[in-house]
Amino acid sequence: MTQFNPLANHPDPGSVRTGRDARLLFRDPASTPFLQTTGMAPGFMQASPIILPGELALDFATFCQRNPKPCPLVATSNRGSPTLPTLGDDLDLRSDLGGYRIWRHGELVEEVTGIGELWRDDFVGFAVGCSYSFEDALVRDGIEVRHISQGVCVPMYMTNVPLEPSGPFAGRMCVTMRPMTPRDAIRAIEITSRFPLTHGTPVHIGDPGQIGIDDLETPLVGDPVEVREGEICVFWGCSITPQYAMLQAKPEIAITHKPGCLLMTDVPSRGDAIDLPSLAA
Amino acid sequence: MTQFNPLANHPDPGSVRTGRDARLLFRDPASTPFLQTTGMAPGFMQASPIILPGELALDFATFCQRNPKPCPLVATSNRGSPTLPTLGDDLDLRSDLGGYRIWRHGELVEEVTGIGELWRDDFVGFAVGCSYSFEDALVRDGIEVRHISQGVCVPMYMTNVPLEPSGPFAGRMCVTMRPMTPRDAIRAIEITSRFPLTHGTPVHIGDPGQIGIDDLETPLVGDPVEVREGEICVFWGCSITPQYAMLQAKPEIAITHKPGCLLMTDVPSRGDAIDLPSLAA
Repeated sequence: MTQFNPLANHPDPGSVRTGRDARLLFRDPASTPFLQTTGMAPGFMQASPIILPGELALDFATFCQRNPKPCPLVATSNRGSPTLPTLGDDLDLRSDLGGYRIWRHGELVEEVTGIGELWRDDFVGFAVGCSYSFEDALVRDGIEVRHISQGVCVPMYMTNVPLEPSGPFAGRMCVTMRPMTPRDAIRAIEITSRFPLTHGTPVHIGDPGQIGIDDLETPLVGDPVEVREGEICVFWGCSITPQYAMLQAKPEIAITHKPGCLLMTDVPSRGDAIDLPSLAA
Repeated sequence: MTQFNPLANHPDPGSVRTGRDARLLFRDPASTPFLQTTGMAPGFMQASPIILPGELALDFATFCQRNPKPCPLVATSNRGSPTLPTLGDDLDLRSDLGGYRIWRHGELVEEVTGIGELWRDDFVGFAVGCSYSFEDALVRDGIEVRHISQGVCVPMYMTNVPLEPSGPFAGRMCVTMRPMTPRDAIRAIEITSRFPLTHGTPVHIGDPGQIGIDDLETPLVGDPVEVREGEICVFWGCSITPQYAMLQAKPEIAITHKPGCLLMTDVPSRGDAIDLPSLAA
């Protein structure tokens, strides 16, 4: 079990109130490496970054366009630019994550806390929406989100649902699962319909076997959660999907976040995410 | 005034029941050139195509990602491929439009009914959602859509609202305007929130001057419509926006539809367009 104590490794939780506070903290070479972002700067959108060589950028952008539920693209950098100004004025993809993973030809080769020396003029950075925004909205609505109440990591599963390929990017959809009462499931669908940039409505409800999940007790990533009598399993597209598609594409280099070290933005997560994200005033 | 008689130039309106029927008609070299698609194959989504050299494709995809209200991308072709299978099984961008416009360095040079001989191995085709889908939904809800009742073309205006640039693509947002009672305007916002792939909710309501429109009587494209006492003007992002951004980018070649000759798809326009379009069963 991954113990869920989001602030345990924060040097001074009170000082990390905004996405920008978090980025400045990670940017400091003296900060603790690989700080987890779960529960950090509540109210600000977090996103999954992926950095690719320019020659793969169009294929990846198209892959996201074709698979918006697991891969909702919230920002794309200019070629060679490490900034994403729509997510944060001074955001710098080279330094502002708590931890990076470096992949070569689909193999994890290193985990680092900065990528300044690896950055290339042809790199393009992408940010994919993640489920924290809609979880905030569910919790605010009084819906019990099981992995949060149990203090564990959300369970993620590989399905048999094929993705629309684009260039070398292909594979099957990964999902998260949250068990709910039927009544809460209906309300969760209603709420998440307003958050298409953070995975939108579920991709499946009910029998896990229908999407190729044989055993809820053995997630691909994360921890299993309790499913109670009379509850229905609700499955959402998961932003680890593009990372698995990247593994299949085997680019000569790709850079992602270390799990749990997401990109912290200045975009309010409480906002209705149908529109493009806009910065907090 | 553009007279609105959508079926006037159709050889046999009854035979054009689906998007595919329309594409097969346009594909026939013996068909009347430049047939208008307004009102054709009701219930099927129409889209604005734009075809660009590969070297500009990533910049354009990113431009659409950054400006989703005027430029909602509903499909992207593979490089060199004239197909868009998510919009129609046998869709062929080289032949399936009623009319094409060829642009060189931002200048209109020709209008043709097929582009087979111009197609290149590096071309990428894009389809941008258009407002017909959400107009269907408004009409089904009993909302009067003024330009339809008046039998004219929807008025389109240039605003002073800057777009998020990407590469050479930049400029200001174009909008459509529909005057409504305040009650209908509220309901129209509610309905269009479910159609982000066809421009979503309005970008402005009320005073046209606030978005730089000085005179409603002289639209950039289309016809002025009557605004009655007590009505409020409701402005939506317009899919001519990417064409104006293309004019500014001045690509060595670009291909768009001739106005009124949209790309007919097999995607039901009545569907809730928050998800990716899916083909009619």
